Amino acid sequence: MSLTIRLHHVNSTVTQTHATTTIKKKINYSTTRFHSKPIYYSNPLAPLVFSSKKMQSLSSTSTPSSLTVKSSLIEADGGSLVDLVVPENQRAVKLTEAEAMPKVKLTKIDLEWVHVISEGWASPLKGFMREDEYLQSLHFNCVRMKDGSLVNMSLPVVLAIDDAVKEGIGGSSSVALVGPDGDLVGTLSSIEIYRHNKEERIARTWGTTAPGLPYVEEVITPAGNWLIGGDLEVINPIKYNDGLDNYRLSPLQLRKEFDRRQADAVFAFQLRNPVHNGHALLMNDTRKKLLDMGYKNPILLLHPLGGFTKADDVPLDVRMEQHTKVLEDGVLDPETTIVSIFPSPMHYAGPTEVQWHAKARINAGANFYIVGRDPAGMGHPTERRDLYDPDHGKKVLSMAPGLEKLNILPFRVAAYDTVAKKMAFFDPSRAKDFLFISGTKMRTYARTGKNPPDGFMCQGGWDVLVRYYESLQAADDSPQKQTVSA
Amino acid sequence: MSLTIRLHHVNSTVTQTHATTTIKKKINYSTTRFHSKPIYYSNPLAPLVFSSKKMQSLSSTSTPSSLTVKSSLIEADGGSLVDLVVPENQRAVKLTEAEAMPKVKLTKIDLEWVHVISEGWASPLKGFMREDEYLQSLHFNCVRMKDGSLVNMSLPVVLAIDDAVKEGIGGSSSVALVGPDGDLVGTLSSIEIYRHNKEERIARTWGTTAPGLPYVEEVITPAGNWLIGGDLEVINPIKYNDGLDNYRLSPLQLRKEFDRRQADAVFAFQLRNPVHNGHALLMNDTRKKLLDMGYKNPILLLHPLGGFTKADDVPLDVRMEQHTKVLEDGVLDPETTIVSIFPSPMHYAGPTEVQWHAKARINAGANFYIVGRDPAGMGHPTERRDLYDPDHGKKVLSMAPGLEKLNILPFRVAAYDTVAKKMAFFDPSRAKDFLFISGTKMRTYARTGKNPPDGFMCQGGWDVLVRYYESLQAADDSPQKQTVSA
Repeated sequence: MSLTIRLHHVNSTVTQTHATTTIKKKINYSTTRFHSKPIYYSNPLAPLVFSSKKMQSLSSTSTPSSLTVKSSLIEADGGSLVDLVVPENQRAVKLTEAEAMPKVKLTKIDLEWVHVISEGWASPLKGFMREDEYLQSLHFNCVRMKDGSLVNMSLPVVLAIDDAVKEGIGGSSSVALVGPDGDLVGTLSSIEIYRHNKEERIARTWGTTAPGLPYVEEVITPAGNWLIGGDLEVINPIKYNDGLDNYRLSPLQLRKEFDRRQADAVFAFQLRNPVHNGHALLMNDTRKKLLDMGYKNPILLLHPLGGFTKADDVPLDVRMEQHTKVLEDGVLDPETTIVSIFPSPMHYAGPTEVQWHAKARINAGANFYIVGRDPAGMGHPTERRDLYDPDHGKKVLSMAPGLEKLNILPFRVAAYDTVAKKMAFFDPSRAKDFLFISGTKMRTYARTGKNPPDGFMCQGGWDVLVRYYESLQAADDSPQKQTVSA
Repeated sequence: MSLTIRLHHVNSTVTQTHATTTIKKKINYSTTRFHSKPIYYSNPLAPLVFSSKKMQSLSSTSTPSSLTVKSSLIEADGGSLVDLVVPENQRAVKLTEAEAMPKVKLTKIDLEWVHVISEGWASPLKGFMREDEYLQSLHFNCVRMKDGSLVNMSLPVVLAIDDAVKEGIGGSSSVALVGPDGDLVGTLSSIEIYRHNKEERIARTWGTTAPGLPYVEEVITPAGNWLIGGDLEVINPIKYNDGLDNYRLSPLQLRKEFDRRQADAVFAFQLRNPVHNGHALLMNDTRKKLLDMGYKNPILLLHPLGGFTKADDVPLDVRMEQHTKVLEDGVLDPETTIVSIFPSPMHYAGPTEVQWHAKARINAGANFYIVGRDPAGMGHPTERRDLYDPDHGKKVLSMAPGLEKLNILPFRVAAYDTVAKKMAFFDPSRAKDFLFISGTKMRTYARTGKNPPDGFMCQGGWDVLVRYYESLQAADDSPQKQTVSA
């Protein structure tokens, strides 16, 4: 089956000089595995999806007040989709202004949040949170609008600075944001600086303060003791130049595509793992159910998370290649599927975070959200148990203030049916016929070069994973690595 | 000035055999100082306030469906005040039923919660929380009603049981609750048992998991690993027989009294400390402001917390005697003041708990709530700083879902004006004239027998505190105590 994921006005300006045959020589993992180098620089899907040029012009000419999207899609939180990218004809002026402001240096993950906010994933948020928004997020997982209504906002979207930066800002009401590479990214205006009580933030967000939470160790512990909120403007759309930017469709771009396809239902599937046939079964079954409910054209938003993930998760580029294979092999129908990257970093904050994952997809036009067992969960960092009750995620999500308009679809558990020799919905009446293949077991298969049972995952997707784990093994076995770890 | 706090249908059946002159010989503090024995067993205010007999008959004949209160008072959360005390003519039957059920033994603090729930302070809560309510409380500080509206519910109101008790309950759908003294207190029906994740509960409620939180050490750490929720019925109104029961007016009793006085505004003042003239200034100033706003008869609910408090707080009986003196000395006007005990235990959970304190007073008919600096706060248990930002309490309270109908009155800071020689609102333009007398400083004065500046507190109230701290000193100096601590 050929791959036919297309968006409106596709303009294939991206060259295909790096074909998939160049995969092997491009492997170059960073030792930290954080934002590892991509397996390949030109994604075979990329030209079929979107041209960067087209995307930039789309987003640069759109402001919340000039949205031309007319559709039956679910309304963005707060009534209109936030877009904080400065219009192209004002960028030079904005850059000059920014150069004169006190500077705040962003980490890679700060920049991911700038990306998230600027495109409206966190609508109605118009910048990093001021204290009022932060406190509401921390205590209520929702924020009150001027009209009295509540929108969901479960994760604090905040920017930390240290004493020296705070002193440098002095009495200025605006600051310029400097990216990790030294480029001026944008500005925050009408700023407010308030204390960053890390212990309280961690306890209320994760429900634990145990050492070893990935986002805490990567982001919060090294951060400054102040938070700076204010109205964000981004001078240029955020790009990563990792060969995957074309997959990073903004909520506005997604909404336009859903409209173009005349979607009357959009169901989102958040993931940070490879897609196996159990996932596919669930997604295909969901579409069938929506058709049975009377929807004429339900579209699947297959939406892998693209920001920070913990070291032992499969990196984004590998996942994207794996997802590509799943579509190429026809496990999911490209006509009714859009694959796109959700630019948020991962908190691993379980029931608190799953609300964010769902809320952001409302802003992208999804009115159905598939929630799995233990969403955004992980093992407890210091105890031998899950950090969260695996059922709490979907329970909390179904009760969350501000998410009333979203339809929550609980995940049906799929496992390998050893009789039918395929992934199937688990049938408790013949439990012994089913084999559960955990992430750990899957990794063990891939690492040891052993194939999973037939029908667990399409061969093309499986090969991507095997190649990835072989490369890790090779890196571990290299003389340099051994010297370092000795 | 004579004391004229009166309620409707006062029926002075309580004898006054223990007069205030017997105070000295009644001092008998328990070594833990938790629920210490009262300084005196017959409160001089008691017969002036309410007879227990009258109160029991009032509450026993009222059920949510038969409320006869007609008033302009603020509506109880959920629309009607919950009353879970079994009508008198059904108590014998209920008792027989309860005797046949599996038993759950209550701690003193569990019993305080039974009291709180049974009288409707936590309306619309009709029992200990099931998991759905618990999760909403923990994550959102509010609970959704069937009509979609939200009511505030910031503290988990839960009952813990251990493995053995859970096993004993087996498949039963109801349990009987047994008080600390072995008496059958009530029942929980349509029960649900779910995991008690203490770490998560503590982290999300207090914003810290540091050791040394008073409620955690007293209640949560020793508790079982399961929570049991269900519909509560209480066989007899909860009484403590400590000489203070007559001060424990239920929300229904308070509402009737506000109506009798034709209150058109009720402003509540939560406290767990002695009343000094700064507090009084604030309360009198609030009444004046409400009159200026056009209210004809604003009534003050002076509402000391009566449940569990930490060891170094002034015990309830001492505080009640101190409050009595403040009223006797005319610092507050008894005609427009009702002193009553709020039966809840104290969490010291700052911004999370202040919502509970405010919400419970809505149920008692208060539509104005005075919030101070750092409400329900304390020092961090392991660091040299306040546990909470002192401003967060009033900020969080003013934004809390479900409290929209409550008017929040920020506390104006009062301090000792060394020029005017009285407590006055702090004037930053002449800051050097003001002396701040902290709780610690006040305790040092009282302990060392030194008087505070003239005008800090009425003499009668001050004498109560001096006597209390002298008694502590005497207990510390006793040979028995020295043997124990040696």
